[in-house]
Amino acid sequence: MANTNTSKSDKSSVLQPSLPAELYLDPVVYQNELRKIWYRQWIYAGRTDQLPSPGDYMLHTIGNQSIIVTRNEKGRIGAFHNTCRHRGSALCQAQQGQFKQGQIICPYHRWSYSLTGDLLNTPFLDLADANRNFSLYPVQCQSWKGNIYLNLDTSRSVELGETADPGFTVLNNWPLEQLKLGHSHQFELACNWKIFWENYLECYHCPGIHPELCKLVPLYKAALSTDRLDPDTELADAVGSGIESWTTTGKAISSPFPGLSEAECSAGHTFMELYPNQYIVAHSDYIRQVSITPLATDRTRITAEWLFSEEAMAGADFDPTPAIAFSKQVLAEDAMVNEINQQGITALPHRQGYLTPQEGDLAGFHLMYMKWMDIPV
Amino acid sequence: MANTNTSKSDKSSVLQPSLPAELYLDPVVYQNELRKIWYRQWIYAGRTDQLPSPGDYMLHTIGNQSIIVTRNEKGRIGAFHNTCRHRGSALCQAQQGQFKQGQIICPYHRWSYSLTGDLLNTPFLDLADANRNFSLYPVQCQSWKGNIYLNLDTSRSVELGETADPGFTVLNNWPLEQLKLGHSHQFELACNWKIFWENYLECYHCPGIHPELCKLVPLYKAALSTDRLDPDTELADAVGSGIESWTTTGKAISSPFPGLSEAECSAGHTFMELYPNQYIVAHSDYIRQVSITPLATDRTRITAEWLFSEEAMAGADFDPTPAIAFSKQVLAEDAMVNEINQQGITALPHRQGYLTPQEGDLAGFHLMYMKWMDIPV
Amino acid sequence: MANTNTSKSDKSSVLQPSLPAELYLDPVVYQNELRKIWYRQWIYAGRTDQLPSPGDYMLHTIGNQSIIVTRNEKGRIGAFHNTCRHRGSALCQAQQGQFKQGQIICPYHRWSYSLTGDLLNTPFLDLADANRNFSLYPVQCQSWKGNIYLNLDTSRSVELGETADPGFTVLNNWPLEQLKLGHSHQFELACNWKIFWENYLECYHCPGIHPELCKLVPLYKAALSTDRLDPDTELADAVGSGIESWTTTGKAISSPFPGLSEAECSAGHTFMELYPNQYIVAHSDYIRQVSITPLATDRTRITAEWLFSEEAMAGADFDPTPAIAFSKQVLAEDAMVNEINQQGITALPHRQGYLTPQEGDLAGFHLMYMKWMDIPV
Ligand code: FES
Ligand code: FES
Ligand code: FES
Repeated sequence: MANTNTSKSDKSSVLQPSLPAELYLDPVVYQNELRKIWYRQWIYAGRTDQLPSPGDYMLHTIGNQSIIVTRNEKGRIGAFHNTCRHRGSALCQAQQGQFKQGQIICPYHRWSYSLTGDLLNTPFLDLADANRNFSLYPVQCQSWKGNIYLNLDTSRSVELGETADPGFTVLNNWPLEQLKLGHSHQFELACNWKIFWENYLECYHCPGIHPELCKLVPLYKAALSTDRLDPDTELADAVGSGIESWTTTGKAISSPFPGLSEAECSAGHTFMELYPNQYIVAHSDYIRQVSITPLATDRTRITAEWLFSEEAMAGADFDPTPAIAFSKQVLAEDAMVNEINQQGITALPHRQGYLTPQEGDLAGFHLMYMKWMDIPV
Repeated sequence: MANTNTSKSDKSSVLQPSLPAELYLDPVVYQNELRKIWYRQWIYAGRTDQLPSPGDYMLHTIGNQSIIVTRNEKGRIGAFHNTCRHRGSALCQAQQGQFKQGQIICPYHRWSYSLTGDLLNTPFLDLADANRNFSLYPVQCQSWKGNIYLNLDTSRSVELGETADPGFTVLNNWPLEQLKLGHSHQFELACNWKIFWENYLECYHCPGIHPELCKLVPLYKAALSTDRLDPDTELADAVGSGIESWTTTGKAISSPFPGLSEAECSAGHTFMELYPNQYIVAHSDYIRQVSITPLATDRTRITAEWLFSEEAMAGADFDPTPAIAFSKQVLAEDAMVNEINQQGITALPHRQGYLTPQEGDLAGFHLMYMKWMDIPV
Repeated sequence: MANTNTSKSDKSSVLQPSLPAELYLDPVVYQNELRKIWYRQWIYAGRTDQLPSPGDYMLHTIGNQSIIVTRNEKGRIGAFHNTCRHRGSALCQAQQGQFKQGQIICPYHRWSYSLTGDLLNTPFLDLADANRNFSLYPVQCQSWKGNIYLNLDTSRSVELGETADPGFTVLNNWPLEQLKLGHSHQFELACNWKIFWENYLECYHCPGIHPELCKLVPLYKAALSTDRLDPDTELADAVGSGIESWTTTGKAISSPFPGLSEAECSAGHTFMELYPNQYIVAHSDYIRQVSITPLATDRTRITAEWLFSEEAMAGADFDPTPAIAFSKQVLAEDAMVNEINQQGITALPHRQGYLTPQEGDLAGFHLMYMKWMDIPV
């Protein structure tokens, strides 16, 4: 959160209260979060190259909403609720597939729709004079650099990228659009989705939890996630000397992406968050993006994806294992502490935790959350 | 629903709204349905010949209510809540069994009751002067043609057969009372109980979902469940020429029941619904009855029974497989679409579906439902 | 319940109503019980000799609260919520273990606490000037005769032993403090916790359910749990002639504890209840204590412990099997009727059960319960 700052004097004395514990535990709050956040913000659904041809589709779930994402004859990707306008049957069951001959056919009574969601045909019935629209329920769908994003809020109150921190432009020099999905890894955590973000947003836990990561980034060994959080630190927000990328060896798995600046290369990592659902970590040789799906107050699904350049992947000796294994290890280390964090906050006398100066970025996340939820600060 | 009709002009233009989606999804609505419908209407519990002798009993469950159905010394079948009047212990655990010596004995403190539910004996205690009635909680119980029905509403506000459509008399010529249970099949569906009824009440889905059934009944191939729904149809509500019954071969599995009229024989099927819990399909050679038990907003148990004449079953070459296999196939085809219908109606923008003229019978079912639930139309 | 009595005239005529059935079925009532009873009363957590050395700890769960019980350097046993004061992580995962070097270290960011719960160290942070207390959340902890008890209510509104019936003094002559845990047995019951207590508090069920126990105690064969409940009984509240203890053989498994009076020896059993969580049955040769943990409206965990003298256990021919097997059999017999009692009370017409004079002790338990719950009688 670029707009959060702390002065040196704060550091030694005052801790700020964190969010009230009930916001992580109450099923009513969770339902409100779906309604006020997850059904209003942009949600990552996959890569455009997962749908190479017109009629290709995949399903994506947000909360309890099942969405069809499909590419139409003009090559444009769009999205609809997975619900027939007749009596409401789900249209698709398979997680991915192909609509033949440009028709989405309901399996129940065989009403059919075009790839843009218009009602095409109603067997045994002439709806020509019906003055009502029976198109599929639309879902907002946009793509950015090959990433597909959905938004269930058709009032278009939030623009894609509005919640990006520090903004889409920070990744301008990365060829994300051309990268290919090399590996993905999905798992569930027994914690609230906000606990996952909080853990991501601070490195106060890094010295104790991520020994290997700390070897790559001296700033993290000093318990800081960004040099902004301590005005006195002389440590840069960058990998240490001799380190090329976030891998088990510290060496890059391929040559750097051509368009990067020298600073971007030597930093070793560039972060972008797209609240509430995704963060992207761009290295000089690969990009890792992680998306977050809430399942219940105390249940969250994490999907991590590793993207590489086509040229690198085509190389005879290409081995992404050092990159994949490294970040899987970090994710597993965080998983453990995320789950015990959820366990501990159920204590009756625990109103809320406290944020140290090193955790200043959490305060910004909390402010955004309170605003989304219409909770006065 | 005999009283529902649609004119030709409706057919080509106007669709009627179906029930609001929340009525299939909201657990509070489900609890109201138990209270206002399932605990007030008559519910099929089994066949009288499952209890041949006095003292024989079986348990039946309606919602979360466990009921003992038993035959008393006078041969009459009655029913009681499976609850002792002392401290409320369940009286029976086994799904069926025999009360020895005309006594229902509570396993906890051994209070005993007669087969008519009167308190007989309280060990270590003289209740002779107690001015309070400790009889078992009664449940209304009536039988019709060998079928046992229960009603938890002791105020007797609904008579057995009151919700039968078109009425008990339609089966007058079938010897249902003498038939024997040849096969039964129970399974659970991941859908609301009303979705099962709606599917049963229309054949708009038949051409796409039931190809074999459509071969037997030309009307169904035309997407009509009864000729009443389309004034212009020349198709009869009957099996096609050369078809004798609903079997995999189209041939009857035995000679027709003796009392049937020629029309009843040649129709090939006669339906009776006993809302909300059962429908009966009478063929010339067998009867199939299906009962519906709600388990949750999105969970329903279906019990199908096939009944045959004792004479036919005694035949050396009797083989009911063509009848049983045929209707199991139809039930399985409907199961699939019932479950995807439930899935699809959860979409946030989906207020309700629409009924085509071919689905006119659903409107009658919905009206009855709204009245039961005291929901203004 | 020593203060409950019934006159002869009651016995033959009037039954008192028991508690309303909804108090055993309603999840809201269950949450209120946690808050008003289980989080305010003293709860048994184990034996002091399970924590022999400073730094030894065990976890104990009350409702959804996880508590650390540990022995400090001064040898005193104390308890804390298993929650870090920083961001609320659980401190311990293992059910028992050892805090090294007198430090409870949070696994998340490594804040550390002393064995008395004081904050010791916060890495990368100087909290010297923080004018706020970051000690672990305290839980009241006391021991009595080697039994550790916890109380989540820090307002100390209830004293340990206040709910003991007939009081701690009844066990004055037993060397409970010196006894050793010889065996323990834990199991879950599909019933409300109050149903377990009610079963414990009456022997009206004994003749039918506990034939072996009735052979040991003639009073129980007469369906009385104490001679107080029937003014006319000539039966003593004691084991029968020739019976030494509650064992499968009726013989004691070791010589009697030295300090017992002759009456205590010959009675064969002395009971003490510590509501709402424990009862203790002291025999001349062993003590059995049973504790009760509510898990849901219809789910209860039972933990039974058998304690013997160290001398007896050291004997070459010591065999506790007759004692353990006997009471496990009684517990299993009660388990069956407790579970069917829970099943039966769900019947819609069942408002409540009735108490016979033999069940007079339940009325006292119910009065105490109503007072705890602030329900007007
Ligand atoms: S529900 Fe889709 S066509 Fe009927
Ligand atoms: S509960 Fe049935 S006799 Fe006591
Ligand atoms: S949560 Fe315990 S040290 Fe941070």
